[in-house]
Amino acid sequence: MQYIAPLANLIEQFRALPGIGAKSAVRLAYHVLEMDKDKAAALSKAILEAKAKISYCQTCFNLTDCNPCAICQSPNRDRTVLCVMEEPRDVAAMERTREYKGLYHVLHGSLSPLEGIGPEELRIKELLVRLQDGSVKEVIMASNPNVEGEATAMYLARLIQPLGVKVTRIAHGLPMGGDLEYADEVTLSKALENRREM
Amino acid sequence: MQYIAPLANLIEQFRALPGIGAKSAVRLAYHVLEMDKDKAAALSKAILEAKAKISYCQTCFNLTDCNPCAICQSPNRDRTVLCVMEEPRDVAAMERTREYKGLYHVLHGSLSPLEGIGPEELRIKELLVRLQDGSVKEVIMASNPNVEGEATAMYLARLIQPLGVKVTRIAHGLPMGGDLEYADEVTLSKALENRREM
Repeated sequence: MQYIAPLANLIEQFRALPGIGAKSAVRLAYHVLEMDKDKAAALSKAILEAKAKISYCQTCFNLTDCNPCAICQSPNRDRTVLCVMEEPRDVAAMERTREYKGLYHVLHGSLSPLEGIGPEELRIKELLVRLQDGSVKEVIMASNPNVEGEATAMYLARLIQPLGVKVTRIAHGLPMGGDLEYADEVTLSKALENRREM
Repeated sequence: MQYIAPLANLIEQFRALPGIGAKSAVRLAYHVLEMDKDKAAALSKAILEAKAKISYCQTCFNLTDCNPCAICQSPNRDRTVLCVMEEPRDVAAMERTREYKGLYHVLHGSLSPLEGIGPEELRIKELLVRLQDGSVKEVIMASNPNVEGEATAMYLARLIQPLGVKVTRIAHGLPMGGDLEYADEVTLSKALENRREM
């Protein structure tokens, strides 16, 4: 009785999204009702289209709306470097730096025996296939700096090094703009360990 | 380049919703991509259906999927009392109390000369029509306890009282569970002014 059925359904749908609580869901639903019909239709269509048009690149397994993806196709990319990342959103973060000009390979997760994620669950076989023709000279391990990410980087390094490919790991240290005082011990000791001559 | 077009569009659509910042929009969009196709379709459909099926009750102007709305139609409602509220979401809040058994009338805003909202912009004419047949004995002004809400209540009271209908205002005072120490002066003086014998 409190909410009519289509409104209650919309609230429930919003509620199921991450980071949307009960109050936010109600607020969003009322907002949709107040939107122009065109705008609501655009929102609805964007959801369907994103699902319909986006798939994984069959080369690097990043999200794409063409196959191979724009990055894999691009003639401006350095094809001798491969950056291995856990998730498509990590690729977006790396692209934002505008620093990296090589190719990517998305694993879709990290090794986590506790959650039952072994090498078979990740795009590791496909990564090894890409390294077969010898065109890739360096693989940068850019998995997350946590236990699973480190284990994944270590595991892959041992697999890849025998192929004669250089394997590097992104640096650990103090985040820029951060405060030394508030850095955790592990980060600080990593930052000390990886110190460089100026 | 950072996000492929359908993903960028979805992020932009989420970004336009209230309370959704840039980071949340990205998170939501990636979540949609990870959802089952069925679930994404259900979300998309819920938005369209809410817009298509929900309209304003032509009696009380609350949101409804039938006309007149379930409350206006209900034989269990006291038809001698009318609660005047600013927005449909206020009706939902009142319904949650399970205390009120009368009917509603939703104004869709409050008088606000600064924002160019005068009596013509609100559902005031329709309210006066509902009072014509003399069946309503009391009108409860439940507009918000702020400047615009008070002005609206005052304005309507002066219009309605000459019709011989009792006009009441919801009580102002300390919110239950609140702390007297942190109550603002206006609320506290209202609470004092409206004190009742125990």
